[in-house]
Amino acid sequence: MLIDEILARLPPIRRVNREWIAKAEARQLSLTKPPGSLGRLEEVANRVAAIQETLTPAADSAEIIVFAGDHGVTAEGVAPYPSAVTAQMVANFLAGGAAVNALAAVAGAGVTVVDIGVASGAPPAPGVRGRRVARGTRNMVREPAMTPDEVAGAVAVGIEEGLCAAARVDMIGLGEMGIGNSTAASAITAALTGLPPAAVTGRGTGADDAMVQRKVAVIEQALRERRPDPRDGLDILAKVGGLEIAGLVGVALAGAATRRIVVTDGFIATAAAAIAVRLCPAAGDHLFAAHRSIEPGHAALLELIGQEPLLDLRMRLGEGTGAALAFGLIRAAVAAFTRMATFASAGVSDRPA
Amino acid sequence: MLIDEILARLPPIRRVNREWIAKAEARQLSLTKPPGSLGRLEEVANRVAAIQETLTPAADSAEIIVFAGDHGVTAEGVAPYPSAVTAQMVANFLAGGAAVNALAAVAGAGVTVVDIGVASGAPPAPGVRGRRVARGTRNMVREPAMTPDEVAGAVAVGIEEGLCAAARVDMIGLGEMGIGNSTAASAITAALTGLPPAAVTGRGTGADDAMVQRKVAVIEQALRERRPDPRDGLDILAKVGGLEIAGLVGVALAGAATRRIVVTDGFIATAAAAIAVRLCPAAGDHLFAAHRSIEPGHAALLELIGQEPLLDLRMRLGEGTGAALAFGLIRAAVAAFTRMATFASAGVSDRPA
Repeated sequence: MLIDEILARLPPIRRVNREWIAKAEARQLSLTKPPGSLGRLEEVANRVAAIQETLTPAADSAEIIVFAGDHGVTAEGVAPYPSAVTAQMVANFLAGGAAVNALAAVAGAGVTVVDIGVASGAPPAPGVRGRRVARGTRNMVREPAMTPDEVAGAVAVGIEEGLCAAARVDMIGLGEMGIGNSTAASAITAALTGLPPAAVTGRGTGADDAMVQRKVAVIEQALRERRPDPRDGLDILAKVGGLEIAGLVGVALAGAATRRIVVTDGFIATAAAAIAVRLCPAAGDHLFAAHRSIEPGHAALLELIGQEPLLDLRMRLGEGTGAALAFGLIRAAVAAFTRMATFASAGVSDRPA
Repeated sequence: MLIDEILARLPPIRRVNREWIAKAEARQLSLTKPPGSLGRLEEVANRVAAIQETLTPAADSAEIIVFAGDHGVTAEGVAPYPSAVTAQMVANFLAGGAAVNALAAVAGAGVTVVDIGVASGAPPAPGVRGRRVARGTRNMVREPAMTPDEVAGAVAVGIEEGLCAAARVDMIGLGEMGIGNSTAASAITAALTGLPPAAVTGRGTGADDAMVQRKVAVIEQALRERRPDPRDGLDILAKVGGLEIAGLVGVALAGAATRRIVVTDGFIATAAAAIAVRLCPAAGDHLFAAHRSIEPGHAALLELIGQEPLLDLRMRLGEGTGAALAFGLIRAAVAAFTRMATFASAGVSDRPA
């Protein structure tokens, strides 16, 4: 199978070792705080320790990889902004003017922008990583969004970019830009979960009620005519996915294979993460869900991959903005774990009065 | 009234100007993102802009003030750790070994430790700000926890420390340490809200069921015998409060008077913030709730002061740990607001297709 060929290019993706979770839990109990009092920060630190197989884990450096791609399904009137905005926002990312730039700067994180499928006759913008597999996807209502070769190519680009990032940083955030990609993410979510499209389709960048109804109808038709195999993440990508989503699947796999902290962002990035988990369940042990967006399908995806988000701030922007916020929380979790004194070292009583 | 004397020492505490909120909302609409897509980050930035009355607000520097005080009510067996741990943890804060030190370091925030009422015959620890108003409170079940003079003195210390911090930083976090202070915070919450003590009393640092029942009985008795006036925050402090809680009331008032970003932490710090709001409702406009702890009374306090927390990570540690996490989120909110490009400047289409 194609996925076996893809995974063969990577180090093996393994589940975290439960013994390391237990070791980390034991260390937490020695630190100068009531047991469990740091709540979810303790879970995060314990999992990072288990991923890195050390009691001195690192979560310092961070980078967001933003994949940009266009979507043929925008011809159906499913997005309130024109496709041209994808390329315009790529230029904005490169100029440092987008939300993800501001949030990444606060988090001390890099932003790498990859043109994996912008629908433009012009060459990739200067400064962008030009890895265009196609000029956008095809319209999923009329034909498969991508050929199997395009899917394999986009996942391969993601793997390469993910391995590059893994060589540089401890934490990798999944970012994306693509007008129309909430339609693709909703279609993926319906395919992966079996939920009806109406339950997992929202406003995206700001669709009104009529547009949301159209999105639902488009997704229903695409799923009916394309019939993606829910067991096969690559088939789902080919039928109703996106180039940038396929790229993020590759990043998630590469991050898991290199035992990095892989941070999902909003609905679209989480759709990619969920495909990665369908392709390789062990990859899920390396994922950290940054936030829950207001897109109705996002909660379903998070449940599917067994992740509880760190934040719930009613965001719905994508780009990696949620991942940028989560870096600080993960860093804090690891800092408490590695820097705190123990009851013994600090001379603090850990016994009941 | 005493509160008038206290407030007379401060610049006037004013509500934020709604016109500045409207100006900030208009700027948000010009930034390169779908309207409202940064969710609660937009609300945060808009309020910071209104507090500072500028469209280029600052949320860079930050400091957590940790007040430490002991509680006579520990004689009733309401806390699983001995009172001696308060002083031990002060030493741990000074040595940099506590959770708040690790989290503040990640946030680039300072930590100032104030001994406002540690129950020790020894002088305040070297390196601490020694502002001891009393050696802990009295047992609220037998007598008022503090005299009115002690309350006034502790609030005054808080005001002075708050003004010092306001001279240094944009954001002030409320931190505390005091074995037994979740009993005081629950009593304050019951007094402020009228809710039964059983509904607002939890495990604190880790009380078992029997100890929680004892806490509830102690609070019920204290409220019955001390009869704090729910309209008078200073009377509540005197009857069932704590020196460190009174100090944080002063910090919150000083932060509001100097138009700083005042960040609450967990249950105990929020009890102080709620007292500050009872004393001076306009102070509430300057408060930002960092997180919701698992203490059952915390949600009631947050509702009382009309604040929705930024985080919900099942933490229950105090010290200012939640505030330290929130600094990064507030900084991110303000960075997006001030650094993002506009649709016009970036040449991005803001019109429907």
